[in-house]
Amino acid sequence: MASDLAVGVDLGGTMIKVGLVKRNKGLVQQKALETGAENGPEHVLERIRDGVNDMITAAGSDGICGIGIGIPGTVDMGRTTVFKPSNLPGWLEVNLTEEVGKLLEGDYPIVVENDANVAAFGSYFYGAGEPFDSFIMITLGTGVGGAIVYQGKVFRGTTGGAAEIGHMSIDPMGPFDRAGVAGSVEAYIGQRFLSHAARMKLLSDEDSILYEMAGPDLKDLTPKMLFDAAEEGYQPAIDFFAWAGHKLGWVLSSCVTLLDIRKIVVGGGVSAAGQYILEPARVALLDSLMPAMKDGIEIVRETLGNEAGMLGAAHLAFEYIDEHP
Amino acid sequence: MASDLAVGVDLGGTMIKVGLVKRNKGLVQQKALETGAENGPEHVLERIRDGVNDMITAAGSDGICGIGIGIPGTVDMGRTTVFKPSNLPGWLEVNLTEEVGKLLEGDYPIVVENDANVAAFGSYFYGAGEPFDSFIMITLGTGVGGAIVYQGKVFRGTTGGAAEIGHMSIDPMGPFDRAGVAGSVEAYIGQRFLSHAARMKLLSDEDSILYEMAGPDLKDLTPKMLFDAAEEGYQPAIDFFAWAGHKLGWVLSSCVTLLDIRKIVVGGGVSAAGQYILEPARVALLDSLMPAMKDGIEIVRETLGNEAGMLGAAHLAFEYIDEHP
Repeated sequence: MASDLAVGVDLGGTMIKVGLVKRNKGLVQQKALETGAENGPEHVLERIRDGVNDMITAAGSDGICGIGIGIPGTVDMGRTTVFKPSNLPGWLEVNLTEEVGKLLEGDYPIVVENDANVAAFGSYFYGAGEPFDSFIMITLGTGVGGAIVYQGKVFRGTTGGAAEIGHMSIDPMGPFDRAGVAGSVEAYIGQRFLSHAARMKLLSDEDSILYEMAGPDLKDLTPKMLFDAAEEGYQPAIDFFAWAGHKLGWVLSSCVTLLDIRKIVVGGGVSAAGQYILEPARVALLDSLMPAMKDGIEIVRETLGNEAGMLGAAHLAFEYIDEHP
Repeated sequence: MASDLAVGVDLGGTMIKVGLVKRNKGLVQQKALETGAENGPEHVLERIRDGVNDMITAAGSDGICGIGIGIPGTVDMGRTTVFKPSNLPGWLEVNLTEEVGKLLEGDYPIVVENDANVAAFGSYFYGAGEPFDSFIMITLGTGVGGAIVYQGKVFRGTTGGAAEIGHMSIDPMGPFDRAGVAGSVEAYIGQRFLSHAARMKLLSDEDSILYEMAGPDLKDLTPKMLFDAAEEGYQPAIDFFAWAGHKLGWVLSSCVTLLDIRKIVVGGGVSAAGQYILEPARVALLDSLMPAMKDGIEIVRETLGNEAGMLGAAHLAFEYIDEHP
């Protein structure tokens, strides 16, 4: 019988989070280590080893059934190798399964997956996605990430790069995102773009309470300040979030129409704006769907924070064990 | 050993096409019967029975392994029942597996599927989709239909309604389609919309060779006339197809970005405009994709005509037999 414990690793550019996860229960123990990405891949691999070993020790005599690693970047279809992870400068192509495996004493299955897919998996087993068999996950952060869970599995596409929702265009005439796509949803509601757009929209109201928070020219404006202003009843901030929600609703409309998946889980820092964004998104989504697709639409907010990555990563190991008994 | 013959039925509003298909070979025999939809469901069911029986007779002592039926409309996840098929007025919800089964003497598996999915299946086994393990199919006809083949299977979504590409919006400010979606690709390049747009665009050129073909006010303008004019070198017609191809390319960009499926098969009557549409579509698609998605993009034309429906429908039966040996 395989252990019902696994280690989940959330490999970030600044911190590596490792967690010991008990199947269907959640985190038993966790730890964060500095990534030290500037010291090169070897150093980072050793940090992962250290974190994983701590969790293996914590598992004691039960042992662990395997290790899952979530990382931003494209992961190959075999789920061993990451290409150019965006938060680890200088990494080109690294077979994490092999490299981490070499550093560990025991012999464990190690599964690697894109961080957005891992977070969706965490949501599916422990978060807002739990009630759904299939859902679309969209993460509103610096970038706009996405993942598709279909019939309990992550839909990966033909190269492992599916669900790049942030780079879907809602307007050929729109502004470019950082991947050069015109009018992509990230170019409107990715965090920096959102702050910039809010600044442009709200700059002309010189009596705005935002000036107190964001300084001259609103140059330090953040989504959090907008949220606080909305909470204080500042209508232009509320209207601005509605504008952003409208963009979100439009891109979700394309996703729902193409996938016929009607449950949507929204995570990431910007989703903290909650109903200020999600309710307008729901209205725009329903308004832009063909009637046959409107039944059963739900948009919910993911409230799992950083732990989603560790939980989802650990579940990669549980899934592996189920498929290779 | 199951027979390697199956019957494929393409249930249209005007004609019912039935074909006897030899696995991996193609059509052995085919027949078309008038649907007589105006006489109600019972009559249509009897026509299907007659057609199928003819094919069973043609199969002789080999017999058939099953029957597949393609029909426009949403088909349930069990693939037995169609809801409100758009070409059969008065049909609400019909369990074709049961109803057709009752009328036949033998006991055969009967699988029902949406016509766009069936056509994609036909393309996958016998047409332009054959080289691909996964592809997006888009059908340019009166409507704009779609289907997703992923790892050799039709991707159906959560209710069987996936891949309604025609109703994906490329512009929130755009014209409405017949499902009330603003700026959907069908509202630009569905056949009637396309003819209307062409008329608006080209009306002002009174020396146009199109006036000879399409009469005063270009009121009988068809995509075929535009194609003929383009073939004669009439530049405004060529430019117009490029405009249409551009719309196609933009919606495909959303599809590729979401699905990470990079092979596209374009079928349907309007696709007869060939490279006049497909080449601009390819340019627009590449222009609107994030760099990581550009590798391996291919847009090919499906040249199988009506037989795609019968071939794909028959393959539903072969697939069923494989899964229920």
